[in-house]
Parts: sequence; structure tokens; C-alpha cells
Amino acid sequence: MADLDFFFFPGSTYTYLTVNRIERLAEEAGVSVCWRPYNLRAILLETGVVPFPPGTAKRRYMWIDIERRAASFAIPYAKEPRHPVDPTLISLRVAMVAAREGWCPEFTKAYYRAWFLDDRPAGLDNNMPGLLASLGRDPEDVLGKANEESFGATLDASADEARRIGLFGSPHFVVRGEVFWGDDRLEDALKMAMVGSAA
Amino acid sequence: MADLDFFFFPGSTYTYLTVNRIERLAEEAGVSVCWRPYNLRAILLETGVVPFPPGTAKRRYMWIDIERRAASFAIPYAKEPRHPVDPTLISLRVAMVAAREGWCPEFTKAYYRAWFLDDRPAGLDNNMPGLLASLGRDPEDVLGKANEESFGATLDASADEARRIGLFGSPHFVVRGEVFWGDDRLEDALKMAMVGSAA
Repeated sequence: MADLDFFFFPGSTYTYLTVNRIERLAEEAGVSVCWRPYNLRAILLETGVVPFPPGTAKRRYMWIDIERRAASFAIPYAKEPRHPVDPTLISLRVAMVAAREGWCPEFTKAYYRAWFLDDRPAGLDNNMPGLLASLGRDPEDVLGKANEESFGATLDASADEARRIGLFGSPHFVVRGEVFWGDDRLEDALKMAMVGSAA
Repeated sequence: MADLDFFFFPGSTYTYLTVNRIERLAEEAGVSVCWRPYNLRAILLETGVVPFPPGTAKRRYMWIDIERRAASFAIPYAKEPRHPVDPTLISLRVAMVAAREGWCPEFTKAYYRAWFLDDRPAGLDNNMPGLLASLGRDPEDVLGKANEESFGATLDASADEARRIGLFGSPHFVVRGEVFWGDDRLEDALKMAMVGSAA
């Protein structure tokens, strides 16, 4: 069992920062991390929440804040990328297949690089096969699994678990049932995981 | 002119943390701060945003997060206080009178203490006169000013300015037109104000 569960949704903007930070910080802290893509969209749809409505000051602020935070962490940032980027949840499905098979961090980092830096979001323009091939994965095999009819139950189960734990955004960090929300809380969550593992 | 404008709305929960931190941190940084209560409710109403909808996981999380943050800053915290607490905007009006007359920090700290620690929110149960009296202010005089008919224009002007700057929450920190949102960004905003004042 991992010390810290990292719940996220591909398509979340702030998660870009976490994906570029969590491995190094967790290693320094000696904390094991489990990457857990989950169906945040189901949660948002049922609560009617739109985190950053288009055309609002809050949304404009979000991109300024992400750019500032990226600069402070020396994370590459080009310009405001396209959004939304995963209309059919294909990126979430593939991330879930990757999590099952043990290559979720690798996929997710490539997914965010393609979206934020290369203007090739995996959920649009049929960019996914090329992204998978670049990782040495067989696109036909992976997409076959991601699009299996039974996968709907996997999506639903992830939303059920999120409801049970009390998740409502991305990224979330969960340590022994204690929930943290937002890239800003990564250090706090790691600190809590360290205390637990030392005890 | 202050180095940093601290925009806030009485009734905002996270602002409790800022009110308890900003004076000491600003003094250490050598940054002057102007406390600027503003009509966030007008902004939220026109965008339809409910920051922490009752009954949701996000709202439950908010209180856990505030309690954790308060503990980490050694800020007193008793229990989840009553909410909402300013149905008639009387706390905002009085904060604006106080800002005009130079006692806004004093009022706002007392306002949050009464709300969070003493279960006497100033916007409810006619608690305001007692709060004002405890600060050595004449309740009749202050409430007379706060309830003047012309005060509506003051409320509207604060919302107009917020729209112009791009504010959508509380607390906000503004340094030379650059906007920061949330108690988490207080240190970043102060750092920016320091760089500017040293230049």
C-alpha cells in the first residue's frame, strides 16, 4: 500500500504542476505514491460545479497563477494551452489502463507535456495513438482496452470511491484517509505521510 | 499609496487566516498594507458562483482545511462557526466605514474573533452594537453612517473596482495591478511588494 494516494483527473489544469513535482518531492521525503486517475467529471456534473467558467475573472486568474507557479518551480510553461481537452474521457480511460498496468506516471507526464507544451492534447485531434506509440505502447491494444464496454463500470467505481472519500477536485492527496486538495497542499500531504511512516 | 492592497469580504471563511497573519508578515517584510473591504457578494451573484455549496464534500473539506491551516499558523480555532453571517451586508458596510475612518484592521480582527471564537457573528442577532462598543466606537454613529441611503453607491463602486481589477474571491492581494487570490498566496504577494519597494 502506498503512503500517499494521488487522485487526479486528466484535463485538470493545476494538476500539470503536481505531475511535474510529485515524483521528486516524494522521493526526497521517502514517501511512496500511488497515481490514481478518477472520474472527477461525474462528480462535477452531479454537483453542477464548473471550477473555472469560461469568460470569468477567475478563469483568467487561473492561467496567470499557473504560469507564475510554474515559473517559481522552474516547470516549463509555454502559453495558455487549449481547453477543454478530453471531451470523450479517452485520456482518463487510458490513464486508468496505464494505472492498472503500472505505467501511469509515465503516461500522465507525457499526456501533460503534449497538452501544455506541444499543443497536441491527447483527447483531441486523434493525438492519442501517436502519444501511446511514443511511449512504446501499442495504441490498438491500449485503446481496445480503454474502449471496452465494461470500462463504464470502472469509471463509475472510481466516482463511487471519490464520493466515499470526499473528493471534489484535482489534484487530491489522501494520506490515511485525510484529504488534501490542490497542488498547494502537496508539501503538507507529504509531511503527513512522512510522520506516519516514521511512527 | 500602500505597497499591497488587501481586498476582502467579511463573511469569507479563509479570510480569517489572513486577518490573523497579514499584519505581522507585512511588518517583517517592510510592506505597507491597505485593508479594502469590497462587495464580493455582488460579484458572486452576477456570476452565479457559490464558492462552498452547503452539503458538499468541498464545503466539509473547507472547514477541515481551515482548521489544519490555523493549527499550522498557531491561530486560535474553536469549531466550525455559524454560516452565513452577514445576510444584510451590515458587516461589510461597517468595515467600509472603518476603512474610511482608519480603524478597519482593528474592526476586522474583532469581527473575525467574534465570529470564529465567540459565536457572536456581527451580522446576526444584533451583535454589532456590542462589538462596536467594545472597540470604543459609538454604535449609533457608526451604524447611522453604514445605513445611510447613499451608502449603496459606495457598495456599487467597490464592486465596479473589483470587476475592473479582476477580483472574484476573498482574500485578494493586489500589488502594482498584479492579482493574487487566497490566503495561500499572501507570502508570494508580499515578496512581490518587497521587490518593488526595493527597486
